[in-house]
Amino acid sequence: MIEIETEKSVDVVDITALVEESLQDGTVENGICLVYTLHTTTGLAVNEFDEALIKDILNLLERLVPVGADYLHNSYRSDGNADAHLRATLLGNSVMIPVEQKKLIMGTWQRILFFELDGPRKRSVCVKVAAN
Amino acid sequence: MIEIETEKSVDVVDITALVEESLQDGTVENGICLVYTLHTTTGLAVNEFDEALIKDILNLLERLVPVGADYLHNSYRSDGNADAHLRATLLGNSVMIPVEQKKLIMGTWQRILFFELDGPRKRSVCVKVAAN
Amino acid sequence: MIEIETEKSVDVVDITALVEESLQDGTVENGICLVYTLHTTTGLAVNEFDEALIKDILNLLERLVPVGADYLHNSYRSDGNADAHLRATLLGNSVMIPVEQKKLIMGTWQRILFFELDGPRKRSVCVKVAAN
Repeated sequence: MIEIETEKSVDVVDITALVEESLQDGTVENGICLVYTLHTTTGLAVNEFDEALIKDILNLLERLVPVGADYLHNSYRSDGNADAHLRATLLGNSVMIPVEQKKLIMGTWQRILFFELDGPRKRSVCVKVAAN
Repeated sequence: MIEIETEKSVDVVDITALVEESLQDGTVENGICLVYTLHTTTGLAVNEFDEALIKDILNLLERLVPVGADYLHNSYRSDGNADAHLRATLLGNSVMIPVEQKKLIMGTWQRILFFELDGPRKRSVCVKVAAN
Repeated sequence: MIEIETEKSVDVVDITALVEESLQDGTVENGICLVYTLHTTTGLAVNEFDEALIKDILNLLERLVPVGADYLHNSYRSDGNADAHLRATLLGNSVMIPVEQKKLIMGTWQRILFFELDGPRKRSVCVKVAAN
């Protein structure tokens, strides 16, 4: 289990190194690694961790799912975080990565991106490996 | 294999309990659970099952992929369900969940949401667990 | 590992048969198959491979994430492929499929769709199976 403390309301954290550490602690040598966030207002994706690109992704989420829009979920909840749930649903809450010799098989530019969509908060991400 | 009978053209069904039952019937204690819908006009996601939020998600799908838009797939098909295929592609057709002692590891608010996008119909969802 | 040579800047390739061949070459009989693209400007989805529908999906991606929009990632990169990264993030970079007796368990209309979003290029897709 990986613990992440996010610092902004909306943010992206590169958790690749944390997932790789988890693999080292485990027993499975080869197989499939599941990275799974336990929250309904966070997301996970595999892409490049580039500052400008991250801003582009967050701008896209804001354009497709604006924070201030008239969501039903917000009308009776004081937290008003419907946008975070909707963005999380579009992104997905897990990623899968192949594993060989306890190492992630990823492309040159690929990183595991954790999306905080309703922070800042303490968040938990589960890492689980199935063997082949 | 889980069988679901949906009741509306577009609907969301909480299938968490059905997936948990499948795990009990299986042999794998620890690993990764794949929940996979066998159809091209349904989707799966993990998020909160809250009536207002579900309406927000369906409103978002309608805003991003309107039912009545001018899709090519509809021009020669009598069923005219291009929107359902497109929404399914955005949502994804499977979710993965960690398993420990034959139980799903999920956050407090997380539920497995099955999206009917072209119903009502009888639908089949495959549950498969890989061991760690 | 599957190698794909794409022929257009944006294209969709049905790689189902290639994934099935990989399964035959492997040792796992039953479990979960991960299909994982190693690039940040490609995507994967499971849906119908129908010419008109594929155009509808690409039109949707163009509507949600227009090629020519004012992305920050493009302002200092000569390749200007921010749209491809954003589309890849929406689609996801992997799909999971149940396996029984070395065969993919898929619905009648389901195919594995590889999305080239910044081609034409040589691309690599990893296929990995975890046993149940």
